[in-house]
Amino acid sequence: MRIALDAMGGDYAPGPIVAGAIEAVADQPDLTVVLVGDTHAIQAELAKAADAELDRLPIVHTSQVIGMDEKPVEALRKKRDNSISKCWSLLASGEVNAVVSAGSTGAMVASALFNAKMFLPGVRRPGIAAIFPSHKGPIVILDVGANMNAKAEDLYQYGIMGAVYAETILGVERPTIGLLNVGSESDKGNELTRDTRNLFMSSPMSHRYVGNVEGHDIYEGNARVVVCEGFVGNVLLKAGEGAVEFIFSMLKQEIARLLPTMPSEAGGSMSNGLKDLKARFEYQEFGGAPMLGIRGACIICHGSSKNRAIRNALRVAGTLAEDKLHTRIIELLGEAPTVELNPS
Amino acid sequence: MRIALDAMGGDYAPGPIVAGAIEAVADQPDLTVVLVGDTHAIQAELAKAADAELDRLPIVHTSQVIGMDEKPVEALRKKRDNSISKCWSLLASGEVNAVVSAGSTGAMVASALFNAKMFLPGVRRPGIAAIFPSHKGPIVILDVGANMNAKAEDLYQYGIMGAVYAETILGVERPTIGLLNVGSESDKGNELTRDTRNLFMSSPMSHRYVGNVEGHDIYEGNARVVVCEGFVGNVLLKAGEGAVEFIFSMLKQEIARLLPTMPSEAGGSMSNGLKDLKARFEYQEFGGAPMLGIRGACIICHGSSKNRAIRNALRVAGTLAEDKLHTRIIELLGEAPTVELNPS
Repeated sequence: MRIALDAMGGDYAPGPIVAGAIEAVADQPDLTVVLVGDTHAIQAELAKAADAELDRLPIVHTSQVIGMDEKPVEALRKKRDNSISKCWSLLASGEVNAVVSAGSTGAMVASALFNAKMFLPGVRRPGIAAIFPSHKGPIVILDVGANMNAKAEDLYQYGIMGAVYAETILGVERPTIGLLNVGSESDKGNELTRDTRNLFMSSPMSHRYVGNVEGHDIYEGNARVVVCEGFVGNVLLKAGEGAVEFIFSMLKQEIARLLPTMPSEAGGSMSNGLKDLKARFEYQEFGGAPMLGIRGACIICHGSSKNRAIRNALRVAGTLAEDKLHTRIIELLGEAPTVELNPS
Repeated sequence: MRIALDAMGGDYAPGPIVAGAIEAVADQPDLTVVLVGDTHAIQAELAKAADAELDRLPIVHTSQVIGMDEKPVEALRKKRDNSISKCWSLLASGEVNAVVSAGSTGAMVASALFNAKMFLPGVRRPGIAAIFPSHKGPIVILDVGANMNAKAEDLYQYGIMGAVYAETILGVERPTIGLLNVGSESDKGNELTRDTRNLFMSSPMSHRYVGNVEGHDIYEGNARVVVCEGFVGNVLLKAGEGAVEFIFSMLKQEIARLLPTMPSEAGGSMSNGLKDLKARFEYQEFGGAPMLGIRGACIICHGSSKNRAIRNALRVAGTLAEDKLHTRIIELLGEAPTVELNPS
């Protein structure tokens, strides 16, 4: 398995990005991570780890970096020698099986769209999936930001891709699919949700489709895959992060107030319990958000990713790049209804 | 002040709804609550409170109730003698200053739209506002579900209405206005967000406008008013509720595990601290979500509302119905740019 890693992407790049790669190749004897970015900067980081397995950590040099706040399409055009485009061209030429970046999500998506020949056969637009916790275990929500102009057919395809992901990567048996909506009645919502519902109901996936999922139902886990268009999915993902941060910052204050009144053992146990709880909401475990619908695999890591997130992303990317997931997606897409309810 | 209360609306109606009205009139000597619904059922509830001030709790009889799961428009047409329509007709005829219901939000909105002459002059579509907590105090998010087909002009109007609400009801000085979006750059998002941004930037509200607010920024409170279209706002509101429920259910398990190891005083203090914390996320304090942009006032309470929520909703509705809020909204709407960027 060869994976291209954008060594320059992320708030803390390249230090913890390169460190994550060093850890990943130490973990996985059959893994090679191609470090894409400034050779000098990467070598300096590699030199810090005495036991880095350099033969499985080759460098591909690029001189430019796309910043988190740059306009993606413009930046990709101006900075031809950027690390993100280089990762994608390594994937497109078959030199790697997957790409991983903690850099600009917008640039990762735009770069994917420039490489439409990299879409799996039948895929209209790739979608980014996020993993949420629920009372029944992890659930997959997509699209969380790759496609701001989704049609019903896109949401239908996201349902299929999400279900295959849930089955293959998360080990969910016969995952159910729900549609994010503003009410439980079937005709609720807008034109997009009504068209999407009709598409699911008339498709071979109808037995998987469990109807509308409202915001507060998400965490129940009755739908293990929840489809939505990219704008609302992105807001949902980031607002969830914000709510968790906010609640835990309040809890921290509360606990700081209580700790002096508690025996130290109970205090320590409580602090650890809360840390475990918070970890259930964090991306680090899953390494990042997979972009589904492309050949090979792509994981978009959080901008604040450090070693652990990168190491996990490299592990998940390896699994995602295996053929069986793609074969299953292509197979199920082939069975989709051919009627375009809402042609684009 | 006279307020029509839908005595039949809500998961627990009419018991706690009527009880909330009894408490509200006891609190506010100048308040009359018109109880709308089944006379027999309401009288039975009134009889339970020996000291209910019946002269300020008149009943207006209706024989039908719209269920939470009924299709709103269809139900309003079939059940002509329902309690929600009656509340609105009392408002339209000037017999009351405000309406409050914990019943079907869809039916409340549809009923408002049937009464377009009740919109404030210049208002395109009313919007429902929700109050969220933030590090800087409560913030207003709208629309959270009244308008599934919003244009930039609607979002601009929601910004004005939200700012006047924040100023008048929440006591925020010179409230800032942000646009819910998927990134921080000005051209992020979709056509609606780009049009809305242009409208704010070229308007007399430009000094209030602080640009894009991403999901995770909401809780920072840098924008005290956040505008969005109703679908995404509704998902945001309900997902926030779901996240809070989920986190606190996990915390409860954690605390149950820890309590036996703690001195009872510290345990009690912690339980109370968490209750206070959870209360910050609850609607009860604010009574419910105001529908802004109508003459008089309308508060839509959560379906699970009990006494306290209803009592608070009746208090807030009374303040909202006062003229100064409306005068200010009308005045600011009058200064809006007249260019329709995206005519509907």
